[in-house]
Amino acid sequence: MVAAGASGPVVVTGGAGAIGAVLVRALLAEGRPVRVIDNLSGGRPEHLAGVADDPRLTFVRSDLADPDHYEEQFRGASEVWHLAANADIQKGTADPGIDLREGLLNAFRVMEAARRHGVRRLLFSSSSVVYGRPSVFPTPEGYGPLLPQSIYGASKLSVEAFLSAFAHSYGLKTYLFRFANIIGPFMTHGVIYDFFGKLQRDPNRLEVLGDGRQAKSYLRSEDCVAGMLFVRDHADEPVNVFNLGARDRISVREIAERVVAIHGGRARIEYTGGERGWVGDVPQQLLDIAKVERLGWTPALTSAAAVDRTIAELARERGIGR
Amino acid sequence: MVAAGASGPVVVTGGAGAIGAVLVRALLAEGRPVRVIDNLSGGRPEHLAGVADDPRLTFVRSDLADPDHYEEQFRGASEVWHLAANADIQKGTADPGIDLREGLLNAFRVMEAARRHGVRRLLFSSSSVVYGRPSVFPTPEGYGPLLPQSIYGASKLSVEAFLSAFAHSYGLKTYLFRFANIIGPFMTHGVIYDFFGKLQRDPNRLEVLGDGRQAKSYLRSEDCVAGMLFVRDHADEPVNVFNLGARDRISVREIAERVVAIHGGRARIEYTGGERGWVGDVPQQLLDIAKVERLGWTPALTSAAAVDRTIAELARERGIGR
Repeated sequence: MVAAGASGPVVVTGGAGAIGAVLVRALLAEGRPVRVIDNLSGGRPEHLAGVADDPRLTFVRSDLADPDHYEEQFRGASEVWHLAANADIQKGTADPGIDLREGLLNAFRVMEAARRHGVRRLLFSSSSVVYGRPSVFPTPEGYGPLLPQSIYGASKLSVEAFLSAFAHSYGLKTYLFRFANIIGPFMTHGVIYDFFGKLQRDPNRLEVLGDGRQAKSYLRSEDCVAGMLFVRDHADEPVNVFNLGARDRISVREIAERVVAIHGGRARIEYTGGERGWVGDVPQQLLDIAKVERLGWTPALTSAAAVDRTIAELARERGIGR
Repeated sequence: MVAAGASGPVVVTGGAGAIGAVLVRALLAEGRPVRVIDNLSGGRPEHLAGVADDPRLTFVRSDLADPDHYEEQFRGASEVWHLAANADIQKGTADPGIDLREGLLNAFRVMEAARRHGVRRLLFSSSSVVYGRPSVFPTPEGYGPLLPQSIYGASKLSVEAFLSAFAHSYGLKTYLFRFANIIGPFMTHGVIYDFFGKLQRDPNRLEVLGDGRQAKSYLRSEDCVAGMLFVRDHADEPVNVFNLGARDRISVREIAERVVAIHGGRARIEYTGGERGWVGDVPQQLLDIAKVERLGWTPALTSAAAVDRTIAELARERGIGR
């Protein structure tokens, strides 16, 4: 169901990224003109293959640091989905300026452009990392204090804070989606992707960062996008904060074993040890999704099923089979 | 009591401001070299009268946007107190770039300078406004979700988020102090100061923004500084979040009546109406201070006593008496 408000052109920043490409297809399927802004630093044009020729799709290659280059896309837009950001947590630890600039400053530019053009809705891909290392599992949206472990997490929480203030100060509506680990087609990073890469380089050995007991919930990008569209159509507060994840979690060890199995099962799994995989990692993540479920939406796949589907897809894509 | 760790030179940004000037005196009283960095946009040199000639005090007039101009002050410093920021919430609503730049970006520069110079402790003047409009009173540090109402509040929460990430990523310790309304000497804004100004312009009429039922807790700056020093000496987590306020609150109506009384009682009080004084205002504020009290510190004055003392001081300063 698409609510009355869900019409008019849509801007998607990061629309050529792994989640953006799924979202863009869903928005086109709603019949809406979609304007993608992407600098292709993480996104790839081929992620939009099949819809690239759709006359309702506009693609603008631009860095968000350069509003003169893209701001006209905001004219007449009824909603803006801000997905563009650095997606590599470890890169942000090495240079905290990256998440400041690509996380917060670019988001601020998008907010200002949206405000100037009277955009009614701003939707943002936040993350479970805003919770830092929570003491409550599953973690509800009302959890505090919010003490991020990584610079990436700090940038996500900062954007949330400014979006909340923009909503209360200037009257636009904002949607803050706190994602579990999102997996699916178009992936260019993440644990499953990394394991495939490592086994390609050395089929006999899989090095796993940490002790393998890190356990998180995983959501397919199709589920993630479906959840966001549902919330957009059914929640209408000035600020709408929603966790999006699965009800279960799966450990890194289990993922490693499944990836090794599909590669023929001969690789030895070696753990580097330690409870977390890297500085800034949050070893345990499980979001409380009762709020979105009360609204009427639930993810189709469990974490385990989402991981299995993603492993199977990646194996098929690369010609790997049992 | 000063813990073993509290020695060595100290940097205070915003050290010529209303809270900074009280803090600088307290740090000098600890016997420590104090390096003040202040652009004098809000602070005033006369706030440091009486200590300006202390040989242990270094004053650097510099904007924080210009690290080349002040970063050498971080050399050898054992702790950095970051107090400099825009203090006018309404200014931030009119131009959100102000709190982005003077709030977050300057704080980020301070964090980076502290990191480069191996500073062990970073202490920050956050605010109750990070709680947005909480549903729980008194509001504890663990309250969530954190949805600031103002751009100023967003900048405070953003700085908290980056400080948390810096602590976890780079090993320095951070102290996040969430202030109630701080009042005392050296004030250049705030409700009491404003009421005195209005009565000076028109002794027969006092306009009060909102319906007067806004009620908040108030803390004298001397109490605030004593609380911060106590927490610094007794809390040692990577991230130390503490509310600092009084146990009671006082309404704007009561403050208006007290200010009118000390002016002779003849001014008519007129309320503009509405539950909040301005866009971005949080009409009800009462912080839960059980955490700092458990640590062993409690403010000397109630909100009512702090307000009374401040009114009396300001009246004496301006030659106003009953």
